[in-house]
Amino acid sequence: MSKEAETQIALGSHQSSSGPSKPKRVMIIGGDGYCGWATALHLSNRNYEVCIVDSLIRRLFDHQLGLDSLTPIASIHDRIRHSVVHFGEQRSAPYSMIDRSRAVFTQHNNVIGTLNVLFAIKEYQEECHLVKLGTMGEYGTPNIDIEEGYITITHNGRTDTLPYPKQASSFYHLSKVHDSHNIAFTCKAWGIRATDLNQGVVYGVRTDEMEMHEELCNRFDYDGVFGTALNRFCVQAAVGHPLTVYGKGGQTRGYLDIRDTVQCVELAIANPAKHGEFRVFNQFTEQFSVNDLSRLVTKAGKKLGLEVQTISVPNPRVEAEEHYYNAKHTKLVELGLQPHLLSDSLLDSLLNFAITYKDRVDKAQIMPSVSWKKIGAKPRTVTA
Amino acid sequence: MSKEAETQIALGSHQSSSGPSKPKRVMIIGGDGYCGWATALHLSNRNYEVCIVDSLIRRLFDHQLGLDSLTPIASIHDRIRHSVVHFGEQRSAPYSMIDRSRAVFTQHNNVIGTLNVLFAIKEYQEECHLVKLGTMGEYGTPNIDIEEGYITITHNGRTDTLPYPKQASSFYHLSKVHDSHNIAFTCKAWGIRATDLNQGVVYGVRTDEMEMHEELCNRFDYDGVFGTALNRFCVQAAVGHPLTVYGKGGQTRGYLDIRDTVQCVELAIANPAKHGEFRVFNQFTEQFSVNDLSRLVTKAGKKLGLEVQTISVPNPRVEAEEHYYNAKHTKLVELGLQPHLLSDSLLDSLLNFAITYKDRVDKAQIMPSVSWKKIGAKPRTVTA
Repeated sequence: MSKEAETQIALGSHQSSSGPSKPKRVMIIGGDGYCGWATALHLSNRNYEVCIVDSLIRRLFDHQLGLDSLTPIASIHDRIRHSVVHFGEQRSAPYSMIDRSRAVFTQHNNVIGTLNVLFAIKEYQEECHLVKLGTMGEYGTPNIDIEEGYITITHNGRTDTLPYPKQASSFYHLSKVHDSHNIAFTCKAWGIRATDLNQGVVYGVRTDEMEMHEELCNRFDYDGVFGTALNRFCVQAAVGHPLTVYGKGGQTRGYLDIRDTVQCVELAIANPAKHGEFRVFNQFTEQFSVNDLSRLVTKAGKKLGLEVQTISVPNPRVEAEEHYYNAKHTKLVELGLQPHLLSDSLLDSLLNFAITYKDRVDKAQIMPSVSWKKIGAKPRTVTA
Repeated sequence: MSKEAETQIALGSHQSSSGPSKPKRVMIIGGDGYCGWATALHLSNRNYEVCIVDSLIRRLFDHQLGLDSLTPIASIHDRIRHSVVHFGEQRSAPYSMIDRSRAVFTQHNNVIGTLNVLFAIKEYQEECHLVKLGTMGEYGTPNIDIEEGYITITHNGRTDTLPYPKQASSFYHLSKVHDSHNIAFTCKAWGIRATDLNQGVVYGVRTDEMEMHEELCNRFDYDGVFGTALNRFCVQAAVGHPLTVYGKGGQTRGYLDIRDTVQCVELAIANPAKHGEFRVFNQFTEQFSVNDLSRLVTKAGKKLGLEVQTISVPNPRVEAEEHYYNAKHTKLVELGLQPHLLSDSLLDSLLNFAITYKDRVDKAQIMPSVSWKKIGAKPRTVTA
């Protein structure tokens, strides 16, 4: 089961000529996770028949590493009672950098899992449109503009459009690079239709569908392994922990609201790739540096009467801390994406959300516990 | 054991300040194979102390697929009695395209095997220089010149030198792309020193060292799974089978003599990469199309009194059959490579070699038996 759980993939199967009211069928592979749960709720609340495959291994990771979501999340049995299912387990770069066994697990699980999905599509459902979660981290931080999947290069007087060069910076991000290459090949060789959603860093927790019942509540990771930058900063501000900027804080990435994640997946499914097409969308709405985010959270915290400090901690990753970054992200907008940009009111609500649950925070989980340079061959126990 | 056997890697460990006559130690991982055996003989005949790791799985593949080398090869026990060991098992693109289990085996074995080697170097021997066999097939057939690993791109007024875009065309070639990305990351993150030898198609069989004893004889594959183009054509000419050109025959690739393979590996070891450097050399000496090769073999055959026919067979692969191809290959020449270019005399000797062993040829092995498009999820038995 674990192989299926680790691949962040949604399969949109397109009916040929059935009535307009018949729901489209979507198989969602993976994830009791953050983006997956939100997307499952979103699609099941529209005209989609949702089916999931998941091993719940993300919950096992929490047990093994001594972590827990800020928000209390219902068991899968209680979640399913409400007729909604999961999608797109989001994987962690730090998790892949804990030790050799986690690095190997990450690449084996993601790469072989995706290969198995590709063979399943070829053999049993060639019409199926594969929607696959990639990451903006596949591109790294080149000193030129980042395009959406492909770049037209003129070299020695000749021109070709080629896959955009990849410079991933963790075994997790590399696994997504490998997936992209494997999928591109099967589109060309077998005529598979696929969309790779190179997602940025996701923030937020609530989507419209979650308001329906508290057992639908999404997870919210604030720890050094699974937590993402902005969510982590909000929790730090809420509990009076200084915001932990890694190194110089000039690291710039694409970000998006989780409400846009679910919109993007819906748009990709509704507008499928052509047969044999390997389509790549950059899935984010705005760029921020880590320093930008710490300034925004500091300002928003002040309005709520919080005293927010910022500290620079030694960067546990190997990455440029000052660099050029300009990534294109127009294709999903052209399909109709209406971005929820990061606003004062969203920051207010995120901070208030963190304050609501602040008694659940384990402060020992906050500092980074995984070093890109100290990773070794021997199994390592990471404890909070 | 099989993981180690499948990775084509040589480790050159550089002594710090020991005497000039003390041999350099080289661990050769993989290969009872074609290039590996030749290189092991070559280095052990120079000032290298050679150690090997191998599971002999290449011989198992022959048993499973009903194949055999044109040349009789001694058992590993008899080979080792002569104090020489193996290197660089050459993997097969068709093998990776037989069925799902072979595709998964290829990627798991190569990618995870290389990850394990990288962790071993980081943990136990950081000074070690990794020399890794890649393939020219990582680049595919772009419509611009192919550079050696990296390309300088000017885009929207900015310039950066980035990894050359990859377009591999089999699960085997893709496994090499994944390896390259993983190794590049560890050079950057951990300071590992590595050389990726993107090798072209190898032809020939004899190196100087093999003249010493008949039990040192290398393997010579002519079948549709492991045989390479020129070697296969020579065997076909020798037994009176028409030369099998796949499709239009305009497929152009880089080629090299196996005597240059062993020279290139020696040059890479003798001139190691710097700490943190991921160095890429394109390892071939000349470009030929399949039609070029069939013309050369026809002409050489005539001189020996052979009547050589050529037939076009449906292309079992998915590849461009007419395309631009211009790949750079100057870095190894700058280090001192003295190419053995394809000559009339080499073709004569290859043909005579094939004629010598022609009674060992199983004609049922000659036609392509693996289709890029017919590959399926279910296990397949490939028989000659």
